[in-house]
Amino acid sequence: MNIRTTAYEDMMAFQRQTEALGQVAGRLGWDQETMMPRGATNQRAEESGAMEAVLHARRTDPRFEGWLAEAEAKGKVEKANLRHIRRSFTRNAKVPSRLAEELARVTSVSQGIWAEARASNDVAAFLPSLKRVIDLRREEAECLAQGGSLYDALIDDYEPGATAASLGAMFDGMRPRLVALRGAILDAEHQPDSIEGRFGTEGQMKVARELATAFGYDWDRGRLDLAVHPFSSGSGSDARITTRVVESDPFNCFYSTIHEVGHACYELGIDPDYALTPLGAGVSMGVHESQSRIYENQLGRSRAFTGWLMSRMRAQFADFNAKDADAFYGTVNKVRAGYIRTEADEVQYNLHVMLRFDLERAMISGDLAVGDLEAAWNDRFKADFGFGVDKPSNGMLQDVHWSVGLFGYFPTYSLGNLYAGCLNQAMRAALPKLDEDLAVGDTSAATAWLRENVQQHGGLYEPREVIERACGFAPHEGPLLDYLEEKFSAIYKL
Amino acid sequence: MNIRTTAYEDMMAFQRQTEALGQVAGRLGWDQETMMPRGATNQRAEESGAMEAVLHARRTDPRFEGWLAEAEAKGKVEKANLRHIRRSFTRNAKVPSRLAEELARVTSVSQGIWAEARASNDVAAFLPSLKRVIDLRREEAECLAQGGSLYDALIDDYEPGATAASLGAMFDGMRPRLVALRGAILDAEHQPDSIEGRFGTEGQMKVARELATAFGYDWDRGRLDLAVHPFSSGSGSDARITTRVVESDPFNCFYSTIHEVGHACYELGIDPDYALTPLGAGVSMGVHESQSRIYENQLGRSRAFTGWLMSRMRAQFADFNAKDADAFYGTVNKVRAGYIRTEADEVQYNLHVMLRFDLERAMISGDLAVGDLEAAWNDRFKADFGFGVDKPSNGMLQDVHWSVGLFGYFPTYSLGNLYAGCLNQAMRAALPKLDEDLAVGDTSAATAWLRENVQQHGGLYEPREVIERACGFAPHEGPLLDYLEEKFSAIYKL
Repeated sequence: MNIRTTAYEDMMAFQRQTEALGQVAGRLGWDQETMMPRGATNQRAEESGAMEAVLHARRTDPRFEGWLAEAEAKGKVEKANLRHIRRSFTRNAKVPSRLAEELARVTSVSQGIWAEARASNDVAAFLPSLKRVIDLRREEAECLAQGGSLYDALIDDYEPGATAASLGAMFDGMRPRLVALRGAILDAEHQPDSIEGRFGTEGQMKVARELATAFGYDWDRGRLDLAVHPFSSGSGSDARITTRVVESDPFNCFYSTIHEVGHACYELGIDPDYALTPLGAGVSMGVHESQSRIYENQLGRSRAFTGWLMSRMRAQFADFNAKDADAFYGTVNKVRAGYIRTEADEVQYNLHVMLRFDLERAMISGDLAVGDLEAAWNDRFKADFGFGVDKPSNGMLQDVHWSVGLFGYFPTYSLGNLYAGCLNQAMRAALPKLDEDLAVGDTSAATAWLRENVQQHGGLYEPREVIERACGFAPHEGPLLDYLEEKFSAIYKL
Repeated sequence: MNIRTTAYEDMMAFQRQTEALGQVAGRLGWDQETMMPRGATNQRAEESGAMEAVLHARRTDPRFEGWLAEAEAKGKVEKANLRHIRRSFTRNAKVPSRLAEELARVTSVSQGIWAEARASNDVAAFLPSLKRVIDLRREEAECLAQGGSLYDALIDDYEPGATAASLGAMFDGMRPRLVALRGAILDAEHQPDSIEGRFGTEGQMKVARELATAFGYDWDRGRLDLAVHPFSSGSGSDARITTRVVESDPFNCFYSTIHEVGHACYELGIDPDYALTPLGAGVSMGVHESQSRIYENQLGRSRAFTGWLMSRMRAQFADFNAKDADAFYGTVNKVRAGYIRTEADEVQYNLHVMLRFDLERAMISGDLAVGDLEAAWNDRFKADFGFGVDKPSNGMLQDVHWSVGLFGYFPTYSLGNLYAGCLNQAMRAALPKLDEDLAVGDTSAATAWLRENVQQHGGLYEPREVIERACGFAPHEGPLLDYLEEKFSAIYKL
């Protein structure tokens, strides 16, 4: 018996295996950050390079030309699959296999070098790798851009449809109001207390697990481990998260956890019919970040939810300073001098991103040499934040991104914040009693709204489109800035 | 500049990537047994199937025909590489891709079903998967055997050069003396005490780590985790081990750990120049098991080493019964009624293997239907061990092997014991003061001898050849049986 299959079916069967291999490669990355013995770094680089070679060969398989020419898409799911595969094939066919493999190999080694350089505050040990990574990514961008902007070509990997110009306009719209709000906050007479107390690792991890559960994380399809830089990894029925513990600052662990739960819940919330297809993963980094940030901030750092968090912390930690739930809310949201992007409050976070956006554009364009990066970072940081960087691990070595070649990725964090602001406005309108739920640790109405309106669609719509459909209006920075001004004016009694 | 490469070099470059991908596939298996969320089973089956499809396609790549025809091997390393690649290509080219993929997918799911069936003692829940696995492995064996013995074709995957006939002769040589020794032991007037006391998980894992360190396990290239069935996984610079904890029986954990350390040290002891080549892994399951068993038994269960182990246990556990080091030695080596192969003493272990050897040959030949397996197991167990199986998890569901299609694997355990007996005789002759070292927990002379004479060679020699070169005589069952009779006659005062 010979069953005739269509070009679309043949292509999707092939793609399904590629998606499964992509999951394997992703899990190899998870393993490297959580479980891998230190001495395995070089071997792992060859393993990752071999996986990348296989994936690249499949993504550029010459049969796609015929399949894409012949395939007929009937419904909107088929059309979306075709759109994703066509975009991926066109993109990857432009990059020589040799370059794709070398990028995988070099970034795998570079990540290990970065981790050691960060631990020992040794910028010089990292610069040769960083230079190599930038050179390779520039070479790749030249293949992709075909005469256009190199940086735009890189952004397209993370946020299809966005450009340096559109993101620059977003930052221009954000910057004045954020700077003004930050100034008013720092000048305010009323300043919340910082958190003080003893927060052991075991207790923090216990609360972190409670928080993940409260936000609906499906432990049957995920797990929580420690890593240097918190991340989430995987799709379908295996979406894992990591967090980190700083004993003096439990909010670092708790809000990293909620953040990564947001990412993982996006993946786990996608229509299961899309699993191992091009629609079975978050549609862009910006939309992904909208989920992690709305979980973390608009929900997790709300007055209502922090009241519940305080009670959970009371159950775990005997001794910490919180006069009452209002004071605790101020403590959670305290705006303070700080070096680290991932620990930044909602007001200053986007200023951290703008710094990276400007520096990485300059590195990719060639205007900023790698050897000048540390000085450029430190000068810009002083100018934006008013105090100097004390050590490289608090400066240019703080983030993993550049070590693994993620140029064009940082601005999607701010785009995610912008989207989260829009979604929050729409969600609050749809769920007028949300704060009553959050006050007892019940996020189910909010997470169900996000799953229904954003997460389930996976890659079905274009990034901006999925946010616009969810909100009922075209996304812009207004709702985020209005939200921040209202929230922090209340906390700081401005 | 165009650098001409030889057919041998081209082939080895391709093979190196395949070896790296094989490591990735192996790590996926490790993850499944240690870290994977339960709900990911089905997705993981697709991932493993996709990896197997890639590996099978590479192992049967048509370019090998040209490479193998043209490649010239100068030294013995090149000749050995060619021998391995030719054997692998010839073997894999006989199996259709569809069958290889289906085997990977089905065994991945079947392993999960086995684990649940074992936990709930539900044989009926496991039988349909087992039937499917056997059917597929028989189909594969038919492709491989090309008219010859199906079971011999399967053995060849684990022990090149061995056959059902040669292994049957080995068991025929072992059985009478083992049965006689077992009878004398069970009838003996003097019987060592069983271990009694409280052995918490944390304390057991701490001692397990001390034991792994004492046997030279390189933590920089490995790690220890918990799993249902202890195993080791990986080569080169990433060879991980697992163990399990039974709170009433610390020896289960300790000797599983030493056993897996033996496997891992074999992989880690291979000449680093062979990494990611066909010589960079243990040459056969029998030789592998010779290393795990000599670490576990001839070294780890020796009078000298158990004296040191007792002192380590005293440091960790306040309260357990051991009158003195001689009594403790008897307790460690106590021969008792037991259902579980991996917990069996050195005398009865090979009787467990013989049972599986006979039953799996009958299943592969078609003489034993899957539906009759439980009764056949229980009847044979009663006949060999003198008491009945109380529940399937103590009977036919105790081992993972059949669920993942490992038919022909069990007899290599006994072959490994035979090889360990031979190696022990040669090693003791070379290291007359070994017991003085072991008495203070120093295994370095023994592990260095094994690394030098066995481990470093990886796949350079054929399995029997590497043992014969190390021992200076052709391996046979005599040394093992002499060792067992001498050791247990002393313990039981026979």
